[in-house]
Amino acid sequence: MGVGAPYGQPSRFESEVMRRDIDWLFPDERASVNFTPLQDLHGIVTPNGLHFARHHAGVPDINPDEHRLLIHGLVQRPLLFTMDELMRFPSVSRIHFIECSGNGTLEWTQAVMPTVQFTHGMIGCSEWTGVRLSTLLDEVGVDRQARWILAESADAAGLARSIPMAKALDDAMVVYAQNGERIRPEQGYPLRLLCPGFEGNANVKWLRRLEVGTRPWMTREETSRYTDLMPDGSARQFTFVNEAKSVITFPSGGQQLRERGSYEIRGLAWSGRGKVKRVDVSVDGGNNWETAKLQQPVLSKCLTSFRMTWTWQGEPLLLQSRVIDESGYVQPTIRQLRKVRGTRSTYHNNAIQTWKLDVEGKVSNVQI
Amino acid sequence: MGVGAPYGQPSRFESEVMRRDIDWLFPDERASVNFTPLQDLHGIVTPNGLHFARHHAGVPDINPDEHRLLIHGLVQRPLLFTMDELMRFPSVSRIHFIECSGNGTLEWTQAVMPTVQFTHGMIGCSEWTGVRLSTLLDEVGVDRQARWILAESADAAGLARSIPMAKALDDAMVVYAQNGERIRPEQGYPLRLLCPGFEGNANVKWLRRLEVGTRPWMTREETSRYTDLMPDGSARQFTFVNEAKSVITFPSGGQQLRERGSYEIRGLAWSGRGKVKRVDVSVDGGNNWETAKLQQPVLSKCLTSFRMTWTWQGEPLLLQSRVIDESGYVQPTIRQLRKVRGTRSTYHNNAIQTWKLDVEGKVSNVQI
Repeated sequence: MGVGAPYGQPSRFESEVMRRDIDWLFPDERASVNFTPLQDLHGIVTPNGLHFARHHAGVPDINPDEHRLLIHGLVQRPLLFTMDELMRFPSVSRIHFIECSGNGTLEWTQAVMPTVQFTHGMIGCSEWTGVRLSTLLDEVGVDRQARWILAESADAAGLARSIPMAKALDDAMVVYAQNGERIRPEQGYPLRLLCPGFEGNANVKWLRRLEVGTRPWMTREETSRYTDLMPDGSARQFTFVNEAKSVITFPSGGQQLRERGSYEIRGLAWSGRGKVKRVDVSVDGGNNWETAKLQQPVLSKCLTSFRMTWTWQGEPLLLQSRVIDESGYVQPTIRQLRKVRGTRSTYHNNAIQTWKLDVEGKVSNVQI
Repeated sequence: MGVGAPYGQPSRFESEVMRRDIDWLFPDERASVNFTPLQDLHGIVTPNGLHFARHHAGVPDINPDEHRLLIHGLVQRPLLFTMDELMRFPSVSRIHFIECSGNGTLEWTQAVMPTVQFTHGMIGCSEWTGVRLSTLLDEVGVDRQARWILAESADAAGLARSIPMAKALDDAMVVYAQNGERIRPEQGYPLRLLCPGFEGNANVKWLRRLEVGTRPWMTREETSRYTDLMPDGSARQFTFVNEAKSVITFPSGGQQLRERGSYEIRGLAWSGRGKVKRVDVSVDGGNNWETAKLQQPVLSKCLTSFRMTWTWQGEPLLLQSRVIDESGYVQPTIRQLRKVRGTRSTYHNNAIQTWKLDVEGKVSNVQI
C-alpha cells in the first residue's frame, strides 16, 4: 500500500466498529438514531465518524456560504451573520459530551437491549470550537427583560428549543468545529448550538435562528416530547441537565471473557452539572463497592474514563458502576429512579447499569 | 438525506480539507509524507483522517489477530504478546502531539513552502490509549544493566530506533487506540510505540519487537538519518526531544484577509519538554510582543491553542509567535538557530515562523 489517503479511514479489520440503528425503533429512517459503539472505544474522545446521530427529519445538505444565523427578538440590533463573520469572532475550544435525553429509554422497565452500544450509545464527547453565545449576545445587545432564547434548526423538522438566558450567558456556544475539523453534516454542519451538560436536542443542530424573549416558546420538543410523565399524571418539563451517569464498557453486554485471570474493568462517567468526583465499581450487584481510578484530566461536563484492575475466578458476577459528581449527586439504581418517576417516563434515565457475567464468561444485560 | 452513515464522513463542502503531499520531495510515493492541513483546523485534536503520515516503505496491511509483540534481550522472561493479551493490561489514555523530526526541514535556509500545511503540518495531536511500557517491562523483568531498548517496526523498511531506558520507564506507552478508535493503518495499526515529546519516528509504528540492551543499536534512522550535520562537520545525534515551537495558523501563508477590521490571531504551541508556559505574538517582525491567551487545559507534551484579538488597519505587517515552555526555553529565531547549527541541518527546525501580510490582505511565507 502507498501513502495515507488525502482523508484517511480505519483499517479494513475494524469494519464491525460502526454506528448502528435499531430497525424497529422508528417508523422512518429519516427520523432515527445511530448509536455510538462504546464497547469498541477507548478514552474520552469520540471519533467524528462514530459519534451518535439523532435526527427528526434527516440530515440537511447545507452550503456554508449560503448559511446565515439570525439573532433577533428582544435585542437592540437584530443581526444576520454569515459563517465567515462568525468565524472572525474571538473563539474558544472546550471538550464536552452530548447525551441524548433518550439515552437508556428502552431500559425503563426491564433490561431490553443486548449491548452497551444500544443501552448507552446515545452519547459522544468532542473538542468543540466556536464562539461563546454571550459574545454574540453582546453584539446584538440583549434587552434587560429577556429571560429565554429560542434556538431553531434549519432542518426539515424545524426543530426548536427554548434555552434559559442564564445558560446562554454562562457557557453556551455557537460551534463550527468538532475534534479539529468542521462539524460533520449529521452533527449540525455548518453550525450548532452547544449547551454543555444540557440534553442532546437543546444543542440545536443546523442552527439558523436565535430569538430572544421573556418566556419559553413551548415547542413540540419541550412539551409533547422530552418531558417525563410522572406517576401523578403531571409532566416534568425542562429537564435540561443530564444528571450524573456511568457505565461499564468492558466487560459489557454481548462480550465474552475467554478465560479466568486478570482484566481491567473499564467505563465512562459523566455529569451535566460539572466534574466527576468519584466512580465506584461493584462486582456483586451493589453490595460492596470499590473506588475506581479516574483518568486525568477530569474536565467539567466531559466524559471521564474510569478503570479498575480485577481478577475473574470464574464465578458468576453482577457488575455495576456508580458515579458521584462534584455537586455530591449519587447515580441512582433503576429501582430508586422508578420509585420517584414511575414507569411511564421515556427520557432522562441515568440509572446504574447491571451487567451479568455468567460462569461461561458471557456478559448480558440484566436489571436487579 | 437519511440518517448518519455507519461510519460518517465530512461534508462535501469540506472536500478541500485534506492531507497533501509534495510531489517533488520524494522519489517514490511509498516513501513519502502527507501533511496535516493546520490552516483548516481548530483546537488541539487532529482528526484521525487528517493526521500527517510519514512512511519509509508504505503502509503494511496487518491482521491484528496475527500480530505479535516480542519483548526480549536483557530480560528475565522473553515474552510474545498477542493484541488480545496487550489489551487486557491496565491501560492509560493521554493527549500528546507527535511531530516529525523533519517538520520545517525545507525552511532551514529560506522561506520555501507557501502554506502552514507544508511548513508545519508534520504534526498531529491525539488522545492515545494503551499500556505503559513500564508495565510490560515489569512483566518480562528487565536486567539491571539494561540502558536502551530497540523498537522495531513490522513495515517493509523494518524501521528501528533505540530508546533510552529512562524514557521507557518514564512515560512511554505501547498504544492501540487514537482518538477513541483503534489506530489507523498509516499511524501504526494495530500497535505503535508512543514516546511523548520525542521526534516522530521514535514513536515506532507497526511495533513488533522490543529488544532490551546496554547500548544504542546505531540504526540507519539514528545515524545516516535524523542526525544534524553541524558547522564543524560533526553530527548531532539522539536529538530525541521536540524543542518548544509555535506557529500562527490564522492568518497564515496563502490566506487572504478580505477587509480591514477585527480578527483573531490563532495558532498552536507545543514543547516536548512539558507544558507551554506562555506564547507571545508580534505583528512587527519581533520588535514588540504581546502575550496571547492560552486555551485551557494546557497539558504536558500536548498542543496548546493560543489566540489574540487584533484589528487590522490595512498596513503591511510581519506576524510571528514565540513560545516559552515550562523549562524556561524560549523558541529561537531562524537566525539564532542557524548561528548555532549552521545551514546543513535537515531536521529539528523549531524556529519562529514569519508570515508577511501585505496591503492587499495577502499572507505569504518570509524569513527576516
